[in-house]
Amino acid sequence: MDQPDLCSFIMPSIVDRSPVVIAISSSGTSPVLTRMIKELNDTLIPERIDELALLFGSYRERVSHKIPELSMRVRFWEELLDSEVPEMVYAGNIAKAQKHIEAALNKKSTERTSGEVYLVGAGPGDPDLLTLRALRLMYKADVVLYDRLVSEEILKRVRPDAEKIHVGKARADHSIKQETINDMLVRIARDGKKVLRLKGGDPFIFGRGGEELATLAKEEIPFQVVPGITAASGCAAYAGIPLTHRDFAQSVRFLTGQLKDGSVDLDWESLVVSQQTLVFYMGSLGLQSICEQLVVHGMETDMPIAIVQQGTTSNQKVLVSILSKMPEAALQSPLKPPTIIIVGRVVELSKSLTWFQG
Amino acid sequence: MDQPDLCSFIMPSIVDRSPVVIAISSSGTSPVLTRMIKELNDTLIPERIDELALLFGSYRERVSHKIPELSMRVRFWEELLDSEVPEMVYAGNIAKAQKHIEAALNKKSTERTSGEVYLVGAGPGDPDLLTLRALRLMYKADVVLYDRLVSEEILKRVRPDAEKIHVGKARADHSIKQETINDMLVRIARDGKKVLRLKGGDPFIFGRGGEELATLAKEEIPFQVVPGITAASGCAAYAGIPLTHRDFAQSVRFLTGQLKDGSVDLDWESLVVSQQTLVFYMGSLGLQSICEQLVVHGMETDMPIAIVQQGTTSNQKVLVSILSKMPEAALQSPLKPPTIIIVGRVVELSKSLTWFQG
Repeated sequence: MDQPDLCSFIMPSIVDRSPVVIAISSSGTSPVLTRMIKELNDTLIPERIDELALLFGSYRERVSHKIPELSMRVRFWEELLDSEVPEMVYAGNIAKAQKHIEAALNKKSTERTSGEVYLVGAGPGDPDLLTLRALRLMYKADVVLYDRLVSEEILKRVRPDAEKIHVGKARADHSIKQETINDMLVRIARDGKKVLRLKGGDPFIFGRGGEELATLAKEEIPFQVVPGITAASGCAAYAGIPLTHRDFAQSVRFLTGQLKDGSVDLDWESLVVSQQTLVFYMGSLGLQSICEQLVVHGMETDMPIAIVQQGTTSNQKVLVSILSKMPEAALQSPLKPPTIIIVGRVVELSKSLTWFQG
Repeated sequence: MDQPDLCSFIMPSIVDRSPVVIAISSSGTSPVLTRMIKELNDTLIPERIDELALLFGSYRERVSHKIPELSMRVRFWEELLDSEVPEMVYAGNIAKAQKHIEAALNKKSTERTSGEVYLVGAGPGDPDLLTLRALRLMYKADVVLYDRLVSEEILKRVRPDAEKIHVGKARADHSIKQETINDMLVRIARDGKKVLRLKGGDPFIFGRGGEELATLAKEEIPFQVVPGITAASGCAAYAGIPLTHRDFAQSVRFLTGQLKDGSVDLDWESLVVSQQTLVFYMGSLGLQSICEQLVVHGMETDMPIAIVQQGTTSNQKVLVSILSKMPEAALQSPLKPPTIIIVGRVVELSKSLTWFQG
């Protein structure tokens, strides 16, 4: 194995505490940096790394024999590394770890080859807001089906040799395409593949996750759901707008307008509630209706309102105004989708709580 | 440096693409595993790792001279590694990277020593639902102030040598303690420390994040806000309950009851809206009021309702019933806090969409 002249040290991965060696420098040019960080992290090295290696080594031949196909064998080891086995070893419980490995080895090969679907929220845009689970599954999946709301930067984190399929859809022909997506998920999982269904935000908040899972459940395809930071939560944090606040809002409501020619079809009366924050997803086309109708139904004309463009990304822009003036203000400085609209007294706090410069 | 007999290879960290060496085995016992994974990842090695090392090395003496104090120097290098510099180098833009390093070196030492507060959501409980940014800041902070809702498992991910302060508060004496927390944050940041304020869920959704930031803003302490997976989102995903759904719910509302002797003080009328999901945070004490009052104000008695106990953790339990029967059902199988309550037609979907076994 061609090993460069590395100045490196072992520490547990901050993702899953598995042993990794950090190599900040090579060719021995900058040992100071390495040593300094080593000093910080020395105490973190799992003491029983050697035992884990020995244990895995002792199963090497049996695993090769039992699972002759390389890619299946890689998956077997990967799943062991993802399992509780390393922690069992670090905790000194070798017998338990062995039992676990035996059980994994004795699974029928059909059980091992069954595909699975991961329905995963990718968050609002900033790749740093991916969850650890999301990232791990992005690294594990064989095939990725992603929406147009998933950013380029996030897609870069998917395992490079995974097949990536863009299923972003124009607003017009939802019904047909949605069925196609459902069918694709079933078909690819049936092939024994790990399929990542990657969606912007959270799959269960305006993500149509429920609809996609229905088909999988009917077809008995195993799946798991990984929540993501929903746009309201991400944009609020990065715009300095607390969605709830002791003094201003005891509840928060997420809505989406059914947009038809720029108008919005909502039960306006129920929206005008004191001490509540409203968040409209995909609302930019309906902005004028929203501002007008809320006032018509009794909301104060000076109620603060914010539009957040491409929140949490380097293109984030926040436009703050009041209901009576926002339609005009938005014409002056047009914003690019995706946007969300936040209405409520809490919006005023953004003046003092802004911290993020996109 | 005592280097064990490692069978290792370089690949970019899946967290931030910085170069790490994976060492699955030591003592040469299990090279097969290592080689297999190496085959998968070979293509991922950044080609210019060497150049990054050389570049850092070329600044070594100047940095040591400029920042004689070790811990400050470690922080300097850490911040460079966290910055855009590595990506600049990988993109071949050495001149730009040098400019960036020069600027960082020429900062006044006072700028370098200024403390900062990270207001971070830790998510609903499963450590796998931490965001990458949250994890990185947990690893970076000098001092951590955490709430009672932050799980043991999550706290284990904090840098071991960080000072950890439990500021979880009994419900009774909010007002006094909250001021104490605000003061602590200011005082510790003024000492030049990186302070992590770690909260369960999302800091801006029933997390009182706005209140804590107000003091920091007033005192001009720099801060940043990291959203977390809010309990509603996490529990819904792990209980198989989509919060919105084309057929059943076009909006979702998060509330918290002001609990006084088990009763709940809410504008009930505004809650009874068709095609809406309601999520009550910290609602278990008010369960009976919630079920009764929703019906009194016009909601169907057979409206599905779920209580999720310690959602996303290995102690998760989900109790599903209907409004008229839930108070009795909850008496039969008492649940432990934290719990959230979900009310709406979408709850019925959990029957077919359950996937998580706690």
